[in-house]
Amino acid sequence: MPGSYANCILRVNLSTGEVKKESIPEELLRKFIGGRGLGSYYLSQLMDPKAEPFSSENPLIFATGPLTGTPAPTGGRYMVICKSPLTGLIACSNSGGTFGAELKAAGYDMIIFEGVAEKPVYLSIKDDEVELKSAEHLWGLDTHETTDRLLEEFGDTKARVSCIGPAGENLVRFACVMNDKHRAAGRSGVGAVMGYKKLKAIVVRGTKRTEPAEAEIFKNFLREKLDIIRTNPVTGEALPKLGTKVLDNIINESGLYPTRNFQTGVFEGTDEICGEALVEKGYLKKNKGCYACPIKCGRVTELPNKNKGEGPEYETGWAFGADCGVKDLIAITEANFLCNTLGLDPISCGATIACAMELFEKGYIPKEDLAAGPKPTFGSSEAIVYYTHAIAYRKGLGDKLAEGSKRLAEHYGAPELSMSVKGQELPAYDPRGVQGHGLAYATSNRGGCHVRAYLIAPEVLGSPEKLDPQAIEGKAQWVKIFQDLTAVIDSSGLCLFTSFALGAKDYRDLLAAATGFDYTIEEMMQCGERIWNLERVFNLKAGLDPKEDTLPKRLLEEPLPEGPNKGKVHRLPEMLPEYYEIRGWTKEGIPTEEKLKELGLA
Amino acid sequence: MPGSYANCILRVNLSTGEVKKESIPEELLRKFIGGRGLGSYYLSQLMDPKAEPFSSENPLIFATGPLTGTPAPTGGRYMVICKSPLTGLIACSNSGGTFGAELKAAGYDMIIFEGVAEKPVYLSIKDDEVELKSAEHLWGLDTHETTDRLLEEFGDTKARVSCIGPAGENLVRFACVMNDKHRAAGRSGVGAVMGYKKLKAIVVRGTKRTEPAEAEIFKNFLREKLDIIRTNPVTGEALPKLGTKVLDNIINESGLYPTRNFQTGVFEGTDEICGEALVEKGYLKKNKGCYACPIKCGRVTELPNKNKGEGPEYETGWAFGADCGVKDLIAITEANFLCNTLGLDPISCGATIACAMELFEKGYIPKEDLAAGPKPTFGSSEAIVYYTHAIAYRKGLGDKLAEGSKRLAEHYGAPELSMSVKGQELPAYDPRGVQGHGLAYATSNRGGCHVRAYLIAPEVLGSPEKLDPQAIEGKAQWVKIFQDLTAVIDSSGLCLFTSFALGAKDYRDLLAAATGFDYTIEEMMQCGERIWNLERVFNLKAGLDPKEDTLPKRLLEEPLPEGPNKGKVHRLPEMLPEYYEIRGWTKEGIPTEEKLKELGLA
Repeated sequence: MPGSYANCILRVNLSTGEVKKESIPEELLRKFIGGRGLGSYYLSQLMDPKAEPFSSENPLIFATGPLTGTPAPTGGRYMVICKSPLTGLIACSNSGGTFGAELKAAGYDMIIFEGVAEKPVYLSIKDDEVELKSAEHLWGLDTHETTDRLLEEFGDTKARVSCIGPAGENLVRFACVMNDKHRAAGRSGVGAVMGYKKLKAIVVRGTKRTEPAEAEIFKNFLREKLDIIRTNPVTGEALPKLGTKVLDNIINESGLYPTRNFQTGVFEGTDEICGEALVEKGYLKKNKGCYACPIKCGRVTELPNKNKGEGPEYETGWAFGADCGVKDLIAITEANFLCNTLGLDPISCGATIACAMELFEKGYIPKEDLAAGPKPTFGSSEAIVYYTHAIAYRKGLGDKLAEGSKRLAEHYGAPELSMSVKGQELPAYDPRGVQGHGLAYATSNRGGCHVRAYLIAPEVLGSPEKLDPQAIEGKAQWVKIFQDLTAVIDSSGLCLFTSFALGAKDYRDLLAAATGFDYTIEEMMQCGERIWNLERVFNLKAGLDPKEDTLPKRLLEEPLPEGPNKGKVHRLPEMLPEYYEIRGWTKEGIPTEEKLKELGLA
Repeated sequence: MPGSYANCILRVNLSTGEVKKESIPEELLRKFIGGRGLGSYYLSQLMDPKAEPFSSENPLIFATGPLTGTPAPTGGRYMVICKSPLTGLIACSNSGGTFGAELKAAGYDMIIFEGVAEKPVYLSIKDDEVELKSAEHLWGLDTHETTDRLLEEFGDTKARVSCIGPAGENLVRFACVMNDKHRAAGRSGVGAVMGYKKLKAIVVRGTKRTEPAEAEIFKNFLREKLDIIRTNPVTGEALPKLGTKVLDNIINESGLYPTRNFQTGVFEGTDEICGEALVEKGYLKKNKGCYACPIKCGRVTELPNKNKGEGPEYETGWAFGADCGVKDLIAITEANFLCNTLGLDPISCGATIACAMELFEKGYIPKEDLAAGPKPTFGSSEAIVYYTHAIAYRKGLGDKLAEGSKRLAEHYGAPELSMSVKGQELPAYDPRGVQGHGLAYATSNRGGCHVRAYLIAPEVLGSPEKLDPQAIEGKAQWVKIFQDLTAVIDSSGLCLFTSFALGAKDYRDLLAAATGFDYTIEEMMQCGERIWNLERVFNLKAGLDPKEDTLPKRLLEEPLPEGPNKGKVHRLPEMLPEYYEIRGWTKEGIPTEEKLKELGLA
């Protein structure tokens, strides 16, 4: 048996209440690694991709990777996989904290939930003891209340909780799954699928330990990789010091900081809301790391009103800040806290509010539709807090915002104002200033996303080398490599942030020593390519039209009006054919039979 | 012995720890009624008005009126009297809630604190048992924490607490005294004097009851006055429905709503922050009344982040809202909550921040003086929350703001930008649109204040009759009558809000039946005049130059730029001589020997 795996899937049928355990064929482990890869494989096997996201046919999979729960740096990640109610495509959301490692320590690589419970339930796991319990008393509680109550009931404060808040219960299409109170499997609405299943939470306590196949080699690699991470300027200094919000000023000065729903790329209020301001204004109390993490990019914050929590991260700060034109760091942090307690993806939440602001200012949303809410105008600090709350409870206009910006903008007859790809809101980098990153947006298997191929690293930060952000030559190849490598990292159980410091060889080293699979870099990268193609095939079967490999019209046609990228648009049409070709897909964007055979997918 | 009095003063020497009780000569009760009148009399007797506000020579007096603790409608008021560290003049701040009635029920009309404690103390009162106790464990706590801790220690949840927060401890010149967590003796910095004395709190439980002199007559009057209050459109309908925030739209539409530090009188964001918005946005949870109050203008509120509290009232909503150009009702309410927990007068706090905003925008405050705080620019919702907190703790620029707008503006070389009279910040009515009300501001014995003579009632609301707000004829007489009657009401223990419905005869009825003094209306009004002149004499002795009976230059010289009062300034120079004459003062504003003799003050 390969090392570092629990070699056990927990299968829970919520319709029947049946719980069973099964092992995983070694071949699958080697081919799909774990986490995102293995979860996506099982999803593909278990459901007809055409089935509705909100249906009993959509499984919900919690998956760890082989490095989850090991002392490998950042080895605490888990993923939630299902068909997304936001995009209608495959979803895989990744989270840190300590829940994933605890699940692994209980002896499970994955949990697969099928069916739908009749009444609210939660899953209680104490190593081998697994029980579905009534969660009727928890329904309606926020994620912090739920966690506190469950830990009390469970009677072991070392237990860990992953759960949904009111947003998931109310089927908000961008509801997330929260664990350890402040950590989110954030994107694509995986929390809404959990809510549809009436699964409120998982509480888990594990006391087991998996062993790496090659203990001594693994230990040496640990030391080596830790050193690389600690001495790298991004993971050793910038991220610990300012968290992800180290990016605010960098991205703003690069003219890439999407402002007022991507109407421009420079935000005049950046100095009031940037990472430095969070420190100077005294809101940051300390750093916090996830399981086995030497980087500790988490921010523990407290506001003048004594409200405490974690965040905002770069994306959240941007979504509620520059994207909504808001420069009130207190309101931004409050909206962030609300996302955590109510269980909302802050990127989609902030970006959907930003979309509503443009719709309202341009007269598409009539005043009477606001019900009693504040006017959603750019700069309104009250609006970001009010509507975040209203979205989770689907109150007033919040009910329409809970559908996401694509459905919102379509409803009001201005679909071009949704800054989304495949229905998922774009994150905090304007692709008109980073051509490679824009290609990654357009081709991401889960829609608008920056963590499927973070081309910002080479195009802006110069890591692993500096690329001209406006160049298009060679970018398709970079995107493919980043997509494939990211699929590997996500499947391993490590955090993507390690990739500022580590390269393919480092991941290979850790994976091979942990599992015992004698991966070459090539084989490992092919695993990534396999996962990418598996996801693509799922999406095509689900009904994806490859024409959706695109960007919002604004980004393709309206030049940036100011800043270093003034006059630029994204040149996707020139880049996409090359990408398809490098992928070994037809020029229509369909993986060829040959490619799928090569990858062992057909 | 007259009815409805406890006929006992508790005298507490904080320097020596001595506590004693003494009775009150009946003649003083008849002449000064109680509360504000009697407290001011004792202050005048006990201190040299020239002594420093922050010195052991400044007594701090908690005073109830004869109607405090009776079933008379709103009969729950108490007052805090001392020399003000904000104005250097006599201070008397009035508060509701239930503390005053409880103090009376313990058997005390007044508590006079003299001297200064060496270490923090609080006064514990259980009827006759009175004890000074260490408050070292409470020092630093906010008003809510202090209240909770004291109630727990006291062991009787029926006890009531009046205390200071960090702002009082830190000698913020506009710190208030808070009771029942949410009620404030708000103005003129009485909380800072309490802090200087190291007196953290008073906790009191009383089980006694005073009896009216003429029980049957009193009972009949109660019924009659209650009926008048209940059927009056202001006290029976408008205030219960929207609280004091019923005024936002009225005052804004009248062009009197001071905006951006009185730069204009119309605020474009009023619909987002008015009383109606507080209800519609769902922040208002219910109404709340003070002791024996049929009006219940209090607002119990809860924000989307689950923060709960009371308010904002009209003045608070304005000070943090229009005056700071902020239209975020959440931030305004948070700033209000902070004022309550930290112990700050929200009028002076908001108005001082507004002054800082104008100073900053006009370049008087250099950026480096902000320390790490947000830029104080008009409209900044973050700034109102941040600086409210920073003021209480005297952090960064907050240390300078804690001195009040007059000292702040002088420090930065632009004294004309402080919208204050005699050092106390003006409240929420632009006098350029209400000439009588402006005269009341200029002549108020405690500086910028609307509740020493609320001419808005006749000049805007038409109560008891409608006066032309721009007319100056006859206004001096109106101001005198309102000032004298208000002194009576404040001394009686009733709430000024009853005066929307009740007239002089009604107060006479209640006072005479309760005390047994056979007051005529004339005698009672002369009590008011006596109190007014007593305060004036104190102020002159303290060093007041009658030239300070004025308004900020802006209000006298800069015409309102828009709205119904466009082009108007305040015509104080035309009004003041008549006021002095009607007061029987010299044309320099000094009470004549004759007038003082007539009032029994010389």
